[in-house]
Formats: sequence, structure tokens, C-alpha cells
Amino acid sequence: MPSTALTFSSRAEHRAWLATQAALPLGFRVGTTRFDFLPKEAPKPAKMTLTLIALDRPTADFAAMFTKNAFPGAPVIVGRRRLDEPALGAIIVNNKISNVCAPGGVDAAERICAETARLLGLPATAVLPSSTGVIGWGLPVDAIIAGLPQATGSLAAGSVLPAAEGIVTTDLYPKVRGAALGQGRIVGIAKGAGMIEPNMATMLVYILTDLAIPRDGLRTTLKRAVDASFNRISVDSDTSTSDTVVLVSSGRVPCTDLAAFEQILTQVCRDLAEDVVRNGEGVRHVIRVQVKNAASPELACALGKAIVNAPLFKCAVAGNDPNVGRLVQAIGKHVGAHAPDADLSKLRASIGGIEIFANGAFQLNPEKENALVVHLKGAELYASKPGADGVFTAPIDFPPHERCVEIEVILGSGDAGAVVFGGDLTHEYVSENADYRS
Amino acid sequence: MPSTALTFSSRAEHRAWLATQAALPLGFRVGTTRFDFLPKEAPKPAKMTLTLIALDRPTADFAAMFTKNAFPGAPVIVGRRRLDEPALGAIIVNNKISNVCAPGGVDAAERICAETARLLGLPATAVLPSSTGVIGWGLPVDAIIAGLPQATGSLAAGSVLPAAEGIVTTDLYPKVRGAALGQGRIVGIAKGAGMIEPNMATMLVYILTDLAIPRDGLRTTLKRAVDASFNRISVDSDTSTSDTVVLVSSGRVPCTDLAAFEQILTQVCRDLAEDVVRNGEGVRHVIRVQVKNAASPELACALGKAIVNAPLFKCAVAGNDPNVGRLVQAIGKHVGAHAPDADLSKLRASIGGIEIFANGAFQLNPEKENALVVHLKGAELYASKPGADGVFTAPIDFPPHERCVEIEVILGSGDAGAVVFGGDLTHEYVSENADYRS
Repeated sequence: MPSTALTFSSRAEHRAWLATQAALPLGFRVGTTRFDFLPKEAPKPAKMTLTLIALDRPTADFAAMFTKNAFPGAPVIVGRRRLDEPALGAIIVNNKISNVCAPGGVDAAERICAETARLLGLPATAVLPSSTGVIGWGLPVDAIIAGLPQATGSLAAGSVLPAAEGIVTTDLYPKVRGAALGQGRIVGIAKGAGMIEPNMATMLVYILTDLAIPRDGLRTTLKRAVDASFNRISVDSDTSTSDTVVLVSSGRVPCTDLAAFEQILTQVCRDLAEDVVRNGEGVRHVIRVQVKNAASPELACALGKAIVNAPLFKCAVAGNDPNVGRLVQAIGKHVGAHAPDADLSKLRASIGGIEIFANGAFQLNPEKENALVVHLKGAELYASKPGADGVFTAPIDFPPHERCVEIEVILGSGDAGAVVFGGDLTHEYVSENADYRS
Repeated sequence: MPSTALTFSSRAEHRAWLATQAALPLGFRVGTTRFDFLPKEAPKPAKMTLTLIALDRPTADFAAMFTKNAFPGAPVIVGRRRLDEPALGAIIVNNKISNVCAPGGVDAAERICAETARLLGLPATAVLPSSTGVIGWGLPVDAIIAGLPQATGSLAAGSVLPAAEGIVTTDLYPKVRGAALGQGRIVGIAKGAGMIEPNMATMLVYILTDLAIPRDGLRTTLKRAVDASFNRISVDSDTSTSDTVVLVSSGRVPCTDLAAFEQILTQVCRDLAEDVVRNGEGVRHVIRVQVKNAASPELACALGKAIVNAPLFKCAVAGNDPNVGRLVQAIGKHVGAHAPDADLSKLRASIGGIEIFANGAFQLNPEKENALVVHLKGAELYASKPGADGVFTAPIDFPPHERCVEIEVILGSGDAGAVVFGGDLTHEYVSENADYRS
């Protein structure tokens, strides 16, 4: 569960809570615009939202981490260059098209940055571009440039919520997490469903702070926070070509306690990461795996990922079926392939606090099975039901609760551990991904 | 496509063709029996089939390969011991329960072997056990022992088909492939859906020959044939705890041409492996990936696996959606994670012979998109349709054709290659695996 463990009974209640998280740190404004355009690769018009995040003054203090996919999107290529620039003044984000491996993609991103910069009185290299959406299509650069004045004209301080709503694609609801430290604060927004390439491709995360942390400190801190949060989730094991996490400080509030900053940054990242999974495509159960007493942190993390990525275990969770054999299969597959000499004789595993494996054998009885079903049903986000057309769609636009299917795996062979989040594999996932482009 | 590339218009036509493949080599007989029992872990009776494969005379010439899962089933533990025994006289297989990590599982397997041996006049160590089905339940040993006389009583030479039908669980149809070499022949049968742990867990393959090949030759030849066939398929990336491939020679027909033997053995294994994918749970499209000009065979094989295991690409194929972005994402993810220094600038990719990526960019237009849809639809095995209860089930009990979605990836950086088979990700897969135990 995230640091909050909230429940919500309506969209209005969720939006009201988001508003409490969304207060912008000092020195930032956000603006958006939405327009129709005709993609040259597709027969019918589409809608695109531009989201602009602008600093009141350009800052030297920013950090960014990008996808490790070997075919990074053009904005990722441009973004990596920006890391060497002296200052960042704005971030311009479009949804609908991800600008990945499209002919002329880097030039398109640079043209949009240059026009954004011109409107804001910045050098072009002080604008960071992001794109999310279909892979393979080219950006409608002229339509975007025509829309930019409206985005800059709508820039406003106060709340990050318009940006959180502007960057979404298939997300069911916006994701915002904020935290205060003294007089300053951190606010983060995310879109997408984690490591998956969702319908519209990618996870984007922007974290804004007014706490004054110099560039080097931001970059080392962001790396550690991302390793402990976004690098510990998987919805479906696919790594987007556009994954981007950006951390920007306006430097408006002095901060001397870097450790406290790292602590709240990490918590914001962890909560947003879990939000991304909970809102993952077709996710009806969030699965939280705690691996303990592993020989190394790498093994603990990889084993946790192997469990949340095992399709048959994911299907069993979707069906509220306590199929413990599939959990043990997933552990055995990973260890057999990657740590064949590991001693599994001390392995203990539990689901929802109920021990199901110890001393090399299953520990099952009908009472435990019933209790496991109760635990699984308690973590369900919504019931699955096809529409009249046979298509399964998620019926929620807010997260009803933050409960997880709790898996504990104790290896008994060391002191390392990891917590990894994933989702189940559902008809809603297949419906969303087998048909969406047609 | 397999070596045959057949089409079938009915179950009867498919069964008639299977009969042509199923002629048993000299020196083997098969028998089966089916009975009801009450699992101690479940509230209602279940059905189990016992399948017995017996040699007329015990043979020293046999080979077997087993799962690399770190939690192997009890029959796999026993089977590994049998490799050191001087002779094999029979194989006893049960479906429904896989006997994995059940308390007392090895003793249960040995008791069944001992009783089988007693009935056949063999030492207990000359019987190889196999089990497939639910992981976590214990075998009903008394019920199995009570059923054994009927299995031995039904032993008959002639056709392997009763065994191919006896070992199945969720398979839609039996899988048999045969080939002749001079006066001798090889016949192989398979159950399951490959690397996946299907509903009832596991892939089992038995290959019988009367060609006289000594033990050492069988074992080295089997390893190479399996590496080029069963180790090149994946339905859903899950590695069963029970996977077993056994090759037994009755030695009745002299064979001096080991190269010719290896060639037909490899072809039988490849065709059976592709049969396993085509019959994989929920598979509506078989995907065949040819990776060419790779720096190493390992990279070629791993990249092919990464493509057929990418959930979003699998969903796109299920929807006859030529989502080439997801193919490139899958390639980029694998190379980024495992060969980050590889040069992808010469990469070319095609689907159904239509080039979709070259020179670092997509090569798309509306005509190509239409042709890609035609190719995908042509490889579909059946149309997806939910039942009145919302559950998706495969409506076929024979393979209507052997066409594949043909993916070619040319890396342009070496001389190595690999062919890998996989399936799409469908509602039928989720229906079968989210609910089957309840």
C-alpha cells in the first residue's frame, strides 16, 4: 500500500483529495490546450492535448532519467542533450503520438521547443520536449505550433492538476502526489501504466519542487529515488520507448537537509509508482511482493519482478484463484534460470499473511484456501464484466481503495530485500490492447 | 510453418492424418485406463487417465531432458535418477495432478513405478514416471495402483494414438508426428502448450524409435534436437515444473547413419514443438520469428523469444492489428537491456514479407497497413467470440491450418540466426487461466 492507504467512494471525493496534493511549488506555472488534427498515417481526425510546465525563471537545477529501450523516442534523444545545457525554463508535453522512430522526429521535437522558447523568451535549448502516444506516427508539428499560444496564454500558478489531466492517454484518472518540507514542497504527476507501453505508449513523470537543491544533488537523489520506486514496478514487462522522469527545482525555498529531501522525494516517487500500477491497463488487483532474506538486492528485485510478470500467476490473481502452484512455479523458473545454485530449502512464502509454502512443500488446507480467496477478493478494484459488444472496459474513474494482494517470499539465505509492485492479467487488458487502433 | 504446412477442414480429417503419423515403431506397446477419484484437497471427484508405454524388452538406449525450474516435480526428480540405470522398460504417465512439491511426492512416484514394474516383470528402477496437472495436490496413489492392471491389460502394438490421447489435459487435440528412415521409424507425441504451465501444468513429450542408436548417441542427439525445437518456443514465458522430453530406442532396426537419424529426429521435434504452440492455451495466431545476421546464436534466440513474449505485441497480433511500434519496442527493450552496445542502425524488420522498418525509421504507408492486416487475418486459427456466460473458449478440436504470422528481423551485425515460435495473447488465454480451478 502507498503511504496513504486511502479509500474513495466517488470520483468527486478522489478529485477533492487530488486537489489537496496538487498545490504547485513556488516558481512554477502550468497551462494546457486541446485541439483536433488529422494524422497523416490515419484516416480519421484525432485529439491532442498540449501541456506546458513553465518556470518563472530558468533554473540550472534539474534532473531527468530516461528509458533504456534501444529505440528511444525523439524527445528522449533531445532530452538527453538538454541534461548538458546550463538551464531549463519549460517542459512541453503532447499526448496521442509518441514521436518514436518517425522520419524527421528529432527535427520535429526541436521545432516545437524553439517555438515554445520564442513565446516564453527562452533559448530553444531551455525547453525539454516530451511526447506520449502511438509509436510510428509523426507529430503534427504545424498544428502543435498553432496551439502553443493558447497553452502559454493559459499558464497559471496554484495547482498542477491541469497538467496531471493534460498528459494522460488511456489513464483512468490523473495521478498527483505532494509532500511538504518546511516552507517548501515537492509535487509529482505521472501518466501511464509503468513499464508497460500502454495504448498510447509510455510513462511520463514530472516532479516539481521549490526546495533549493543544486543540480548534482538533484541528479544523484533522483537516481536513488527512481531505483526504489519506478524501477520496482511492472504492469506487463514491456519497457516503453519514451519513459521519462524529470525533477525540477525552482530554488525558491532554501533547503539544507538533503536527507529529508531525499526521504520525501522517495515517498512521492513510491506513491506515484504505485498509482501508476493501480491505474495500469486492465489492472483489477495490485500485487505487492516483498522479498526478504535474499543473497543480494539484485536477486530480491529480479525475483519480485519475475513473480509479478508471470502470466499464469497474474491470471490466477485476476480470477481471485489462490493458485499457489503458479506462484511457486514463477519462483522456481527465475531461480532455476538465474541462480541455479541457490539453496531454496529454507524458502517460505505467504499470501495475505497466510503461509502457503515451507520446508520444501506446500502448506495447504481447505480453511487456508478459503482465507486466501477472501484476501484476493478484498484487494479487487472492480468486478470484470463485458459490455454488450463483448469488450471489457474498466468501469471506474477513481481508485476505490489502495489495498494490495500481499505476497511475502522469505528466501532464508541473506539479508537483502525488495518490494515490487505489479498488476494482474485481465480481459480488460486484452480488450484494451488487442483492438484499440482499429 | 512445420515441415507439412497442412490444412484440415474437420476433426475427422485431422484424426485420419494423425493415424498416418501414429504407427508405433517395432518393440513398443501402449495402453491406457481412465477412472474417477476424489482428490483430498478438493471437494468434488475428478477424472484421471493413466497412460503406459512399454517396451517388449528393456533397453539401455534412452535419453531424457527435464525442466530447469528450481522446483522440479517429483517425477522429474525420479526421472533424473533413472538416467543412471542400466535399462528402461516402461513409462507410466498420469494427467490431472502434476505431483510437484506435494508432501511425500517422491515416495508416491516410486510406489507407482514399483507396482507397474511388478505387473510387467521389471525391476522398479526400469520404470520412468511422469505426471501432469495441478501443482500442489498429492497423487491418489491407491486409485492409480488399482487402475494399473487395466492399463497393462490394454497394452497393444500398432498405433501410438491412444497414448497421445491419454496424456492430454487442456489440449484441444492430440499431437503426433512420425518419420521413417529406411526400415525403421521415429514417432513422437506431445501434450501441453510448451513453455507455459497450462491449466494442468506441463509439457510432456515421448519420442519412440526402433532404430538402433546407442545410449550416448541418443543423449547427445536429443540435446541438439531439443535445443533447436522445444527450447525455441514460448506460449507465455512460464517454465513448467514438469517439462520432460524422453527418447527411447527399442533397437530393433539397425541404423548406421546417425546424421540421417538426427535430421529426422530434429524434424519430428520441430514439428511437435510447433504443434504445441499452435495448440497453446488461447493461441489464435502462431507467430514465427526469424532472426538473421545476429552477432551470436544466443542473441538471435533471446531476441526472438523477447518478441514472442512481449504482451502488447501479442495482443496486437490477437486483434489483427499491425502495430509495428510494439514490435520495435520489444526489440529495443531486449537490446537495451541485454546488448546495449549493439549497433541497430542496419536493422531491418518485416511482417509477412512486407518491410516495416529500415534505416532507423518506420517504413509505413496505408497500402502496407492494409496488406499487413490481410497477412494477420490469414494466419488466424479461429475468430474470438465469448459464450453466453462471457467465457471465451476455443471452438476448434483440430488445427484448421499451419500458417503463421511471419516476422523477419535482420540485425545486419553478424552471421548467426534463430527461428522462434510463439502465440498471441487472447481473451481465450485469460478465460482459461483466470477461472479454471473454481
